Amino acid sequence: MGGRPRRRGAELLAALHDAVLAELDEVGLGRLTMEGVARRAGTPKTTLYRRWAGPEELLLDAIAAAYPVEAPSPAADDLRGDLVAALQLLIEWSRHPTARAVQAIMTERHRRPELAEALQRVFDAAGRRFTATVLHHYAGLGQLDPALVTPVVEDIGEALVLKHAIDSGEEPTRQRLAEIVDQAILPAVGVRPV
Amino acid sequence: MGGRPRRRGAELLAALHDAVLAELDEVGLGRLTMEGVARRAGTPKTTLYRRWAGPEELLLDAIAAAYPVEAPSPAADDLRGDLVAALQLLIEWSRHPTARAVQAIMTERHRRPELAEALQRVFDAAGRRFTATVLHHYAGLGQLDPALVTPVVEDIGEALVLKHAIDSGEEPTRQRLAEIVDQAILPAVGVRPV
Repeated sequence: MGGRPRRRGAELLAALHDAVLAELDEVGLGRLTMEGVARRAGTPKTTLYRRWAGPEELLLDAIAAAYPVEAPSPAADDLRGDLVAALQLLIEWSRHPTARAVQAIMTERHRRPELAEALQRVFDAAGRRFTATVLHHYAGLGQLDPALVTPVVEDIGEALVLKHAIDSGEEPTRQRLAEIVDQAILPAVGVRPV
Repeated sequence: MGGRPRRRGAELLAALHDAVLAELDEVGLGRLTMEGVARRAGTPKTTLYRRWAGPEELLLDAIAAAYPVEAPSPAADDLRGDLVAALQLLIEWSRHPTARAVQAIMTERHRRPELAEALQRVFDAAGRRFTATVLHHYAGLGQLDPALVTPVVEDIGEALVLKHAIDSGEEPTRQRLAEIVDQAILPAVGVRPV
């Protein structure tokens, strides 16, 4: 009777990622099942099991696929601009459904520590913190002292964006991002903005 | 029939603060009433209305009473130690029931903006951010450039403590607090740790 045309490859994968995120939004992490995702995607459950052991693996895959990767200037000639762009990327990502999925996993961390650890591995593979890839790129090219790019310093940008969002309930403006870069990140890596 | 001995002054006030915080923990912000607090405290409702217009005012009063005040070294001779102590104060406060009350108010911010604003006035009266009082003290005595103590810089310590707690689910150690001071706050105010 016709039905849905068969999807393959990247198209099918994107549909399954969308389905697991939509299912998570509706039923929550505790009730996420392969059945639910398969039903929502209109795909046999066996298709899912061919690639993932369970709904958590599929969810982590969806998070990894949507996680943006910072692209610092190859010549490392605009540290300030690259840092602002990295924080802008964080804000754009925070509007994506996978950001809610990350929050759901972090909230359940005490009940599901193995899932939170797997999530950290996803982040590690993507460069860990926003701004970290940029900072290590410039340090690698000798423009910053690598000893100054510590875990605390990698965290400054994300921490100040998060704090601003919690306090104000709003995304920081581009002006605020520039202040975070100029007044907090650059001094920490030994660069005084002009 | 005896009953509860009548409490006065500071003792009564402390009992009412405890009662409003316990009531909040049990029923939540949306169902907090003078009746509920009075019943829990074993006090006539009229006693409460003599001092506060409603349960929110009583709750804000409890938060203000428990909010710690930073005491920087009068001679301003230990910036690093005073900053670590300020962050330690933040961590101690975060274990107090009023920290949960603050979180409840912030979570309901969109529904109850006037309450969140009143809370900000409580914080402003207490010196706003942890570490801000210390930084302004040293700036006032000419040991820091006051132009460097911006809202972003006032936020660095709290933001990094919060981020650490969210990521790890644990309080930062004293060692981590020292790293936050040395690697993020001191550079932002133009001081390189020795």
